[in-house]
Amino acid sequence: MRNAVGRDIPEVIDGYGRTTPFIGAFTTMPAMNRQAPRVKRLLPGTSKLRASIEEVFTDIPVRDGMTLSFHHHLRDGDGVVNLVLDIAAKMGIKGLTVALSSVFAVHAPMIEHMKAGVVTGLDTNYMTGPVAKVISEGVLAQPAVLRTHGGRARAMECGQLKVDVAFIAAPAADEYGNANGVLGPNACGALGYAYSDAAYADTVVVITDCLMDYPLSPVSIPQTRVDYVVTVESIGDAEGIVSGTTRVTKEPIGLKIAETAAKVIQAAGLIKDGFSFQTGAGGAALATAYFVRGMMECAGVKGSFALGGITGYLVEMLEQGLFRNLLDVQSFDLEAVRSLGRHTGHVEIGADFYASPFTLGAAVDKLDVVILGATEIDTDFNVNVATGSDGYIMGGSGGHSDAAAGAKVTMIVTNLLRSRLPIIRDRVVSVTTPGETVDVVVTERGVAVNPRRQDLVEALSKTSIEVKDIQELQALAERLAGGPPQVPVRGDRIVAVVEYRDGTVMDVIRQVRK
Amino acid sequence: MRNAVGRDIPEVIDGYGRTTPFIGAFTTMPAMNRQAPRVKRLLPGTSKLRASIEEVFTDIPVRDGMTLSFHHHLRDGDGVVNLVLDIAAKMGIKGLTVALSSVFAVHAPMIEHMKAGVVTGLDTNYMTGPVAKVISEGVLAQPAVLRTHGGRARAMECGQLKVDVAFIAAPAADEYGNANGVLGPNACGALGYAYSDAAYADTVVVITDCLMDYPLSPVSIPQTRVDYVVTVESIGDAEGIVSGTTRVTKEPIGLKIAETAAKVIQAAGLIKDGFSFQTGAGGAALATAYFVRGMMECAGVKGSFALGGITGYLVEMLEQGLFRNLLDVQSFDLEAVRSLGRHTGHVEIGADFYASPFTLGAAVDKLDVVILGATEIDTDFNVNVATGSDGYIMGGSGGHSDAAAGAKVTMIVTNLLRSRLPIIRDRVVSVTTPGETVDVVVTERGVAVNPRRQDLVEALSKTSIEVKDIQELQALAERLAGGPPQVPVRGDRIVAVVEYRDGTVMDVIRQVRK
Repeated sequence: MRNAVGRDIPEVIDGYGRTTPFIGAFTTMPAMNRQAPRVKRLLPGTSKLRASIEEVFTDIPVRDGMTLSFHHHLRDGDGVVNLVLDIAAKMGIKGLTVALSSVFAVHAPMIEHMKAGVVTGLDTNYMTGPVAKVISEGVLAQPAVLRTHGGRARAMECGQLKVDVAFIAAPAADEYGNANGVLGPNACGALGYAYSDAAYADTVVVITDCLMDYPLSPVSIPQTRVDYVVTVESIGDAEGIVSGTTRVTKEPIGLKIAETAAKVIQAAGLIKDGFSFQTGAGGAALATAYFVRGMMECAGVKGSFALGGITGYLVEMLEQGLFRNLLDVQSFDLEAVRSLGRHTGHVEIGADFYASPFTLGAAVDKLDVVILGATEIDTDFNVNVATGSDGYIMGGSGGHSDAAAGAKVTMIVTNLLRSRLPIIRDRVVSVTTPGETVDVVVTERGVAVNPRRQDLVEALSKTSIEVKDIQELQALAERLAGGPPQVPVRGDRIVAVVEYRDGTVMDVIRQVRK
Repeated sequence: MRNAVGRDIPEVIDGYGRTTPFIGAFTTMPAMNRQAPRVKRLLPGTSKLRASIEEVFTDIPVRDGMTLSFHHHLRDGDGVVNLVLDIAAKMGIKGLTVALSSVFAVHAPMIEHMKAGVVTGLDTNYMTGPVAKVISEGVLAQPAVLRTHGGRARAMECGQLKVDVAFIAAPAADEYGNANGVLGPNACGALGYAYSDAAYADTVVVITDCLMDYPLSPVSIPQTRVDYVVTVESIGDAEGIVSGTTRVTKEPIGLKIAETAAKVIQAAGLIKDGFSFQTGAGGAALATAYFVRGMMECAGVKGSFALGGITGYLVEMLEQGLFRNLLDVQSFDLEAVRSLGRHTGHVEIGADFYASPFTLGAAVDKLDVVILGATEIDTDFNVNVATGSDGYIMGGSGGHSDAAAGAKVTMIVTNLLRSRLPIIRDRVVSVTTPGETVDVVVTERGVAVNPRRQDLVEALSKTSIEVKDIQELQALAERLAGGPPQVPVRGDRIVAVVEYRDGTVMDVIRQVRK
C-alpha cells in the first residue's frame, strides 16, 4: 500500500501487526470508545507505600510480556527507567515493551536489556543517543513504534497503547500518590507527558526521592489513580534534567534565519493582540522568539499564550505582559520550573490537552504560529525529524507533527545545508510530518512557501522577504553542496514504524547496514 | 430483602430496576470497567460557539428519555437548570431524567415540568424546597435516586449513571470550553461536582455569562471534553449563590455542643501536627471549628488540610498557617471564592477526588475528624439526613455518608430535641449514613460513643466530658419531649431510593400521605 505521502507501507508488519496507512492529516476519524481500565477501590487506612521497587514488582505482579510506561521529564538526567529495568532483569522478566515518551543518552543501559531479551519492544515519541543507534542497527526484537506527543496520549485514550504498569518518576509526592514536578531536589517542572499514563494504565506506581506530607499541592498526578508509592534515593541527576539549549543563538546565519522567520510572521499579519505561538528550545527557534518579542514590544501587542516546552525566555515574556498565559506540557529550564509553581498564568497541561488529535480540541489547534526544525524536507514540504541522512534514527516527532497540524502558520527554520549536505531533497529518508501541514520553510538563502498557502505567498510578495520556489532552494543547496545527497543503503528489516498522530502509518524505517 | 441496617428493600423497584442491598460500608467491591464514552475529534478551526441553547438542543439532538446533568455550585441562585428545562419543554421533549447534584428552592419551576411529563426522573445528592416536597407527595413519575456526592462521581465513573448531555454552568469560560468558577460576575468558586460530568457525559455543553479570551486559566473544566459553548445573559443570581450559613452560632446551646465536640477531638488525641478536618457551613459546625482553632493556636499545632465545602473561616485558618491546604470541592462564600484564585495552598478538587468510594483513595479517607449534623439518629447510630420526622424529603447525604466513612472520627453534633421532637429514636424515618461509620454523638446533655469505638470510650473516660449510653440520651430526650416521636403514616409507593455511596440501596422513601 502506498500512503498519502507516497510511502510504501506493508499491510502487516511483524511484531507490529496490521497497518492503517496515512491518508491525510485531517481525514482519519476515531471509531472507538475510550480505554476503560478496571474500577478499583482502596479501603481507608490502606498504605500505598512499598519499601522497594522489587516489592511492587512482586505485589502487582510484573510478568513477562507486559508494557511498562515512563515519562521523560527528567530528560538526560533520568534515573528511574534504568532502575526499574535493572530490577526487571534481575527478577528474570522477559519480553517487556517500554513505553517511554522520549529516550535519551542516559538510557544506554537499556541496550543490554534489549540484547538479553528483557526489553523486546519500545514505544516512544523521540529517541537519541546509543539506544537510537542500536535500534537503527536492528538490536530490538520488534520494530519500535515512533509516535508524536499528542499521538501517545491519543493511543492511550483510544486503547491502542495499553500500559500494564506506569512508573511515574515524581520530584515530589505524598504517601497517597499525589505528585508534582515543581518541588523537591530534582524538580523538573510540568509532568504533562505522564497524565495519560496515570489515567489509563492498569497499575500506577509513583517513584519519588522527596516524600512530602499529605496532601501535596499542586497535584499533577492525582491520588485517585495511584496504586503504589516507592521512595528511592534519587530519581535522577539534576545536572541532566535541564539539558535543552536555552540561549538565543549568537551564530550570524542562525540570527539571519530567525529574523527572516519573524518577518514572515509579521507579514502574515499575526503580530497583533491575542497572538499565540510555540517554539522549541533550540538556539535558532529561541532567536525567532527574540525578534518576535521585539516586534510585539514595538507594536504594543498583548499576546494570548505560548505553548509547548517552556523556557525562561518565555517566562520573561509572561512577566513582561507579552503573553497572558504559558501552557506548559514540559519545562525546559529552571526558570520555567520556578515560574510554574508561582505564576497563575503559567499553567501545567497534559499531553492530551497539548496535542492529542482525538479530543474536542487540543491547544496546538489554537496556535497562530509554530517554529520547528527539520533534518530534511522534500519538495512536497514533507519533513523528516526522525532519521539522519545516514539512515540512523536520531529523533522523532515529539510535538512536531502535532503543532504543525494545529497552527495557522507552520514554519520550518533551517540552514540550507547541514554537515555540508542539502536539507531539501526529492525524497526524505523518512517522513515524520506531512507537507500538507507545513506552510513555510525559512533558510538563510530565502523562503519557500507551500503552494497550498497562496494567502501567504501573496502577503510575502508585498514585503522585501526573498521568496523562492522550494525547487529553487533545492537547486541552490545542491549547487553549494556539489550535488544531491546520497540515499543511504538500508536492509529490508523494519526497525521502526513511524505513526502519525492519528495512529495511521506515516512511514517505516529500515535497518541500517553497518 | 433486609439490608445491613435492617431495612426491607424490594428486589425490584418500578422505574429504578433491580436493587443491590447495602451489606456494609466497606464490603461492596467494584466489579466493572470505567465508563467509556466515544472518542471524538474536533478539527482545527471548528467553532464550539452556538447562538442559543435551542441550537445546541437541535445540534445534539436532545431526545425524549435522555439524561441531562447539571451541577449545583450556583446553589439557590442557579439560573441554568430552569433555563434549559424550559427550552426542553418548549421543544416538546418528554421523559427526561435530571441529574442535578443538589436541588434548591430556586428549582421550583421543575415541578411544572414533572407534572407535564417533561421531567420523569431525578438523580440528586440533596434536595430541599418545593421540589423535595412534591416528590415526597408522589409527583415524579419514577422514584428519585438520592446519592452521595462521592457516590454520584462513582456512578458516573462506573457507568451506572449515564449522562447524555451535561450542561455545565460556568461563571467564566473561553470559546473552546475551558471553564472555571473563580472569575466573572457570578463567580461561585470550585466547580468540583461538575468534573465527572465533563469526564463521562456523551456530550458536554458549557453555558456561561462571561466569555473570556482564549485560553482561560485556571482550567477547572478542560476544552478537551467540551462539545459546545453558549453565552447567555445570566447563569444565575449572585445573591443566591452564597446561601450557606457562614457565621459562628451565637446561640448558647449550640456553643455548648460545639465546645464539647472540640473537647472530644482533643481527648481523642487528634489536635496535633498534621491534623485534618471537615465541617459543614452551619452555625454549630462552624462553632466547633472556632473552638478547634483555639486549641490549635494554643498547642502551636500546624494542621494539614481542611476539606469539603470551604468557607472564609477556613480561609482565615489557612492564612494563619493553621492548615497547609484547603481541598475545595465547593466554595461556600465569597472569601472562599476569592481565596481559591489566589492561594496556592487552596486547591480545587473534583467530587471523585473528594469522596468517591471506588477510586484509589479519596480525600475523605485521610480525614482525622468530620463534624456532621443529623435529622434523626437511631440507637445503632444510623443517621437520617434525608427525611424530616414528618416523612417529607428535606435533604440527603451530600457528602455526609462519604466523610463519615472516611474520617477516623465521625462526630454528629445536634441538639437533643428539634422542634420539640427527640432526635434519638428506635428507628429513623430513613437511613442515610450507616451507624458503623458514626463514632460519636454530641448533644447539649451529653455525649454518646458508638460501642465499636472502645478506644474513644476509654479516651473520654479520662476527661470531664459527660459520656452516656445512646439509650440514656434517648430516654432523656423522650422525657423532655413527653414521649417518643410519632412515626409518620406513609403510602406504599416508593418516591425515592436512597443509594449508599457504593451504589447499594440503603433505604427507600415512601410517599407522604397528605
